Amino acid sequence: MPAVTRIALGIQYDGSAFCGWQSQPHGKTVQDALERALREFAQTPLQTVVAGRTDTGVHGLGQVVHFDTELDRTDFSWVRGTNAFLPKTVAVQWAKPMPDTFHARFSAFERTYYYALYVHPVRSPMLAARAGWIHTPLDVEAMRAATGHLIGEHDFSAFRSSECQAKTPVKHLHQIDVRQQGDFIHFRFRANAFLHHMVRNLMGCLVAVGRGRHPAAWMAEVLASRDRNQAAPTFMPDGLYLAQVGYPEEFAVPAAQSGSVPWSTVWTESPES
Amino acid sequence: MPAVTRIALGIQYDGSAFCGWQSQPHGKTVQDALERALREFAQTPLQTVVAGRTDTGVHGLGQVVHFDTELDRTDFSWVRGTNAFLPKTVAVQWAKPMPDTFHARFSAFERTYYYALYVHPVRSPMLAARAGWIHTPLDVEAMRAATGHLIGEHDFSAFRSSECQAKTPVKHLHQIDVRQQGDFIHFRFRANAFLHHMVRNLMGCLVAVGRGRHPAAWMAEVLASRDRNQAAPTFMPDGLYLAQVGYPEEFAVPAAQSGSVPWSTVWTESPES
Repeated sequence: MPAVTRIALGIQYDGSAFCGWQSQPHGKTVQDALERALREFAQTPLQTVVAGRTDTGVHGLGQVVHFDTELDRTDFSWVRGTNAFLPKTVAVQWAKPMPDTFHARFSAFERTYYYALYVHPVRSPMLAARAGWIHTPLDVEAMRAATGHLIGEHDFSAFRSSECQAKTPVKHLHQIDVRQQGDFIHFRFRANAFLHHMVRNLMGCLVAVGRGRHPAAWMAEVLASRDRNQAAPTFMPDGLYLAQVGYPEEFAVPAAQSGSVPWSTVWTESPES
Repeated sequence: MPAVTRIALGIQYDGSAFCGWQSQPHGKTVQDALERALREFAQTPLQTVVAGRTDTGVHGLGQVVHFDTELDRTDFSWVRGTNAFLPKTVAVQWAKPMPDTFHARFSAFERTYYYALYVHPVRSPMLAARAGWIHTPLDVEAMRAATGHLIGEHDFSAFRSSECQAKTPVKHLHQIDVRQQGDFIHFRFRANAFLHHMVRNLMGCLVAVGRGRHPAAWMAEVLASRDRNQAAPTFMPDGLYLAQVGYPEEFAVPAAQSGSVPWSTVWTESPES
């Protein structure tokens, strides 16, 4: 019997072209597109396990999956071969053989999301589905102050969708960065894991603070309430990107290709102040 | 009889969503979408004159149109009212009353196009239809040297599409800038006017030089030949943007909103070297 190899893939996708990550009977998800392409290339079904199931409209820059196969292909052959059968809106960025101990979901100890928010009186066609949009100025300092109340290990039930399947609402939010650049406000969220709709619900509250509807300290009240009804409405998915999944160094998982959206470089440049 | 006012509009659009600018019987062009929206808002047909008719797949950042109307609306009312009836892929950015002497096409003395080229072994889903893509490294210095042979007033027949309707193939190319940034090479072309497919044909030749298929001086030979068969194939439209139309200062035409695509800011930052 041939040996089974575990292969990890880095995946990027335009979330506006799909009904989320997870496979559905209608076949219009990223997982469906990826598994169709893998089957075409490998000439055999390959089932993938994903690091983070993203929602409809949420983009992937540093998504990671793994699958097990008896096939022997070079790393770049997996990339090029699978991409040949994928639509323009999704692409494998890298492939790497992994030890059996690697698991795309359970080995991950951190997820990083970006949110790109365009602040301008008039909407931008080139940013449609790629950045959130607010037509009124926002108080960036107040938003930054509000994020301070969220850092640490908390019960995030107030920011959890009713459809969330997570075992526990307790997550550890390591860091939230807020950076203004031109007509954009860029947000970066790092946590061990996120609840369903958690970033979009946090964004809804941050925007409410930025518009002056609530003081920054209101964020602490919402968090403490553990009550979804206390939080602002879920913000639009358009500017949300799964940017990076963190794994133990021993797996040497390649970094997400950073140049492929403009705002990923915001976080590699030196800070403005 | 009410007075007739000439109104100029700044327009942005995602060219991948339309069959070019100019109105067609099938109605799937930017002009069709804009005139439908204007008719909805104004409750009367309004015919627009455009600065530069762009091809299928070519994006607009600083497109300008004018029309004449007896209606009296505030500037921002034209913007917001028209945008309410436009799809997400096109938006009016500004509106401004103009003297009768202003003409969107004939008053323009300069057009600026950007071309964004992504250079990476693997394609990027977020850049699909937004940037050209080359999977092999390019010699940027050779490409820059090649551009030097194009500057000035020349017969650009070698870079002219057979469908071109311009009265003369003689155009004045004022400037071509080439700037490398991360995984991108950005190009900026400034000329009094461009022939049909001229920038895409120039790009095809520049990429051929960048790949080492021809020396930089070959560009001068192609230009001098005035023969389309001597030039490289027309390059993909994906990364091409009509960035700015230049008018005499007396008209005080607003600048294109620069933050709405990332690479527009490449040209407002200080140069890399």
